[in-house]
Amino acid sequence: MANSTEFSPSDAVAILTRTPAILNAWLRGLPEAWVLRNEGKDTWSAFDIVGHLIVGERTDWMPRVRVILEDGEARPFDPFDRFAQAKESRGKSLEQLLDDFTRLRRENLAALRAQNLQPEDVTRRGRHPALGVVTLSELLATWAVHDLTHMHQLSRVMAHQYRDAVGPWSAYLGVLRCSGHSAP
Amino acid sequence: MANSTEFSPSDAVAILTRTPAILNAWLRGLPEAWVLRNEGKDTWSAFDIVGHLIVGERTDWMPRVRVILEDGEARPFDPFDRFAQAKESRGKSLEQLLDDFTRLRRENLAALRAQNLQPEDVTRRGRHPALGVVTLSELLATWAVHDLTHMHQLSRVMAHQYRDAVGPWSAYLGVLRCSGHSAP
Repeated sequence: MANSTEFSPSDAVAILTRTPAILNAWLRGLPEAWVLRNEGKDTWSAFDIVGHLIVGERTDWMPRVRVILEDGEARPFDPFDRFAQAKESRGKSLEQLLDDFTRLRRENLAALRAQNLQPEDVTRRGRHPALGVVTLSELLATWAVHDLTHMHQLSRVMAHQYRDAVGPWSAYLGVLRCSGHSAP
Repeated sequence: MANSTEFSPSDAVAILTRTPAILNAWLRGLPEAWVLRNEGKDTWSAFDIVGHLIVGERTDWMPRVRVILEDGEARPFDPFDRFAQAKESRGKSLEQLLDDFTRLRRENLAALRAQNLQPEDVTRRGRHPALGVVTLSELLATWAVHDLTHMHQLSRVMAHQYRDAVGPWSAYLGVLRCSGHSAP
């Protein structure tokens, strides 16, 4: 089956609903080396990634849904601080971050359901501070793909720790050839 | 924290133990479009990926551990058929595949524990049919990174379905720039 460009909010929500359980299954109770190591200078660990997802839940996704529904293009979105987690996660354990993310995502999806979006609502427009005019459907699809881009990053960050340990098998393991595409 | 090359079998097992729960949280009950769509001709869907992981459990990882422990370099490993899942998954549901993978992984990790590996065992050597001499520690690290490479692929295959739906945000989503590195 080839790819499709048709967008259904319920398909995006199917991803968004699952991410907390995926991250809990993946990270909770893992040995610390897997959680705290990154890919080198100015790169993120699993701990940093979960912190970044929390900031998105607090400041990005649902706030922007509300701006589109309430103000449309008239009010640009607030810029998203991609580095806020360094401060916000300080002193917390990974388990606390996973709990926070799980709760915030549940609250945000409840708030999204409460908007009772109708099919025609997904074409409503907002204004991104850098990208210009975007639609609600693009925002919801991006929320889901943002989860996926950080799972893509998480698998790569963890695989990186075994870059040498796998010996000659590195030739067969695509994740070890992923450069991060200058972004997660 | 930078990366480390030190290898501990228990760290690899920490990953291997979690993969079935991660895939169940990620895929069980997902709308069919997410499960069956791929990245185009000769690429894999989520369904294909789980099928491939099952073949690995049946024919690759623990059988090769046993070859190393019983025959060392004297007997090369059997080659791994990377396309066997097309036949083996036919007629099954994703839920059946997830059940099969969960059971096989549990059995294989029990069999690994039963080997009661000692620290010096991880330096024992075997012979890969294409890569030549490899060690038991390299095999165990590769088993774990193989899981991660397919989670890396899974996030990319799913994100690909929203390549157009995210609109201008595609510029910020690294997973959409991942080419697959000519391998998963």
